[in-house]
Amino acid sequence: MTQSRAGTEPPRTRVSFLSQRSAGASGRVLRPSAKLLPEDARGHNRALVLQTLFTVGQQSRADVARGTGLTRVTVSDLVTELMAEGLLVETGQREGARPGKPAILLDIDRSSFQIIGIDLSDSAVFRGAVLDLGGSIQRRVQLPVTGSIGQAAIDQVAILIESLLALVTAPLLGIGVGSPGIVDRAGVVISAPNLEWTGVPLQAALSEQFGVPVVVANDANAAVLAEHSFGDASGEGDLMLVRVGRGVGAGLLLGGALLYGSRFAAGEIGHVVVGTDGGELCSCGTHGCLETWLAAPRLEAKLADAALDTTPGAAGDTILREAGRRLGIALATIVGALDLSEVVLSGPERLLDGSLVEATRETIRRRTMERLHGGLTLRLSTLGDDIVLRGAAVMVISSRLGVS
Amino acid sequence: MTQSRAGTEPPRTRVSFLSQRSAGASGRVLRPSAKLLPEDARGHNRALVLQTLFTVGQQSRADVARGTGLTRVTVSDLVTELMAEGLLVETGQREGARPGKPAILLDIDRSSFQIIGIDLSDSAVFRGAVLDLGGSIQRRVQLPVTGSIGQAAIDQVAILIESLLALVTAPLLGIGVGSPGIVDRAGVVISAPNLEWTGVPLQAALSEQFGVPVVVANDANAAVLAEHSFGDASGEGDLMLVRVGRGVGAGLLLGGALLYGSRFAAGEIGHVVVGTDGGELCSCGTHGCLETWLAAPRLEAKLADAALDTTPGAAGDTILREAGRRLGIALATIVGALDLSEVVLSGPERLLDGSLVEATRETIRRRTMERLHGGLTLRLSTLGDDIVLRGAAVMVISSRLGVS
Repeated sequence: MTQSRAGTEPPRTRVSFLSQRSAGASGRVLRPSAKLLPEDARGHNRALVLQTLFTVGQQSRADVARGTGLTRVTVSDLVTELMAEGLLVETGQREGARPGKPAILLDIDRSSFQIIGIDLSDSAVFRGAVLDLGGSIQRRVQLPVTGSIGQAAIDQVAILIESLLALVTAPLLGIGVGSPGIVDRAGVVISAPNLEWTGVPLQAALSEQFGVPVVVANDANAAVLAEHSFGDASGEGDLMLVRVGRGVGAGLLLGGALLYGSRFAAGEIGHVVVGTDGGELCSCGTHGCLETWLAAPRLEAKLADAALDTTPGAAGDTILREAGRRLGIALATIVGALDLSEVVLSGPERLLDGSLVEATRETIRRRTMERLHGGLTLRLSTLGDDIVLRGAAVMVISSRLGVS
Repeated sequence: MTQSRAGTEPPRTRVSFLSQRSAGASGRVLRPSAKLLPEDARGHNRALVLQTLFTVGQQSRADVARGTGLTRVTVSDLVTELMAEGLLVETGQREGARPGKPAILLDIDRSSFQIIGIDLSDSAVFRGAVLDLGGSIQRRVQLPVTGSIGQAAIDQVAILIESLLALVTAPLLGIGVGSPGIVDRAGVVISAPNLEWTGVPLQAALSEQFGVPVVVANDANAAVLAEHSFGDASGEGDLMLVRVGRGVGAGLLLGGALLYGSRFAAGEIGHVVVGTDGGELCSCGTHGCLETWLAAPRLEAKLADAALDTTPGAAGDTILREAGRRLGIALATIVGALDLSEVVLSGPERLLDGSLVEATRETIRRRTMERLHGGLTLRLSTLGDDIVLRGAAVMVISSRLGVS
């Protein structure tokens, strides 16, 4: 097969995906510093219809009009467009409808497109999955990568994506990647020491290689998006998710938007010193960083020394309580400054659940004003090891469809 | 003079102000959860034209079109509207223009409207001013209020506004009030212990009493807006302003928007415990809150005890350094979590400048990663005692004209 017009066609890919054209307008971010045109309003309203159906579930056109404040004509028009693209389906008539013209229910067709999610945060294994539009994992692939760094690690990511592409059974909306380290808004990994990546334009490289839209972001940022969309988050829009693993990092969702920070390092709390009474030497050269108290390998080593005796009052329990207390000292200041209502921990449950999280909760309570922060929710995520994979899917859905 | 149609006219006021209708659309906040209509695009673009002229200064219509990306027809149309309202004026022709049709320059007419700004943060005196659209103070009024609480304090605010209204010499854009305590988005003072206000709907009450648009916000939030608009802020959009006075509070501007927090208490860092080595008893009942180290009255008392000897190495200097160190301990965690590039201190220069701010800077440096936060700017505001008054003006300009 030859291309119909040499040089004017986009590169052919082995997978089909929703065209940029149809999703482009709705993916625009509305910023006061950018001009706003009538077509932006249409894209915004299109995203609004999708958001309502994603959030509330199946509804009639009239329900959507009421929920969004859009006219029924506008809603009908947008629904026709979205059904033609396969994103929406009619699911039948409302049960128990009153006599007269029955209301036809609409819903997102969660199987209409698929997403590839990649989690690079584990230094021993790169994890990948094929997910549907509902963020449910359809297929998984894992690639042991111990010791892979630099270009070799980038090659491993491509191999993982290749193997996942073979498992895709619907048009591909895009590929989302959660990477350790500092990642800018263009998906350039500015710095990921564990992978020895510096200034790696991973998003652009993968997008070019596979010819599909790719979104690369920090793993904790992906995780907080997953918690917001699929976890038990209250949905108030402000949420902090703390990831405890080889290091300690966090993702912050403020006013419903990810916080990036001045150098894309928001949430990097692992190397902030905690307390005024010393601490162990950290890999960064400072004493008493949060990671020296809380990083999983350090905690595991300390627990091994304490003969894994974690019964209350035993040495292991004391170690976990002290780790939790140190996390609480750091979080108390952040909760106070940001007036957070919810902080979620993600990482090894064996370490985090129980004494550790209890000590964190107690420490925050002691170090902030009860009147203001007594209602704080501090809990473990229920999304387990899939949190970054599912967050990577949210990144793609958000960037392609304008919903969160 | 009688009203032309009883019951259908808005209450008459003694001052004229820009009609809600003309400014309403542009004042709309664009949120993804709200529907977006064509008139919103027009309002947005109108604000964009004003924003460009506020930020860049005088420009031709063609400059504005280039700067905003809007068509020249749209710009001409919006400029005509804005000139009719008095907000824009033609200021002459560009000097040294090339031959041919000379470019006529436009600018905001900063004298076209005035704003009343009110600062209630000082417990001894309520401060007020008449400001122009450039945030310059035209007239001032101060009202000693020592001891006024509850309704008496509300009455004093009204008296202050009355006296300022008599000094207004242009149509009034609105009244901005910076209040101590926790203030919600509707301008209800949820809690201001010093004034013994709980759930006072100050914004609604003043707006009804005076028949003009009123915006009430927390004083530190007003201050961070002033620093962003009129101070030496880098303009990157993320900024923390720490106010040191009777208490300690902060305003946070993240991604160009004020952070409110889950209970409107964002920035309330005064009662977060600092360090793990004890501290004095705070008014809130806890030991070692930031206010016990840093609040101006406590520092003044300690310095008086130390015989006001603030030469290096002397007791007074040690007190200031320790206060700065404690502020640095709290800020290090916040700078790390938010990846801030700039933190500005506002309060008595005699206390903050020199040893205190140096110790804060050094402490943040020691407790965060040099690689990420070595470029942090920590400095004193140059706006002095007018910071809340000028911030109150920004609040009004922002809410009425959609610019920041």
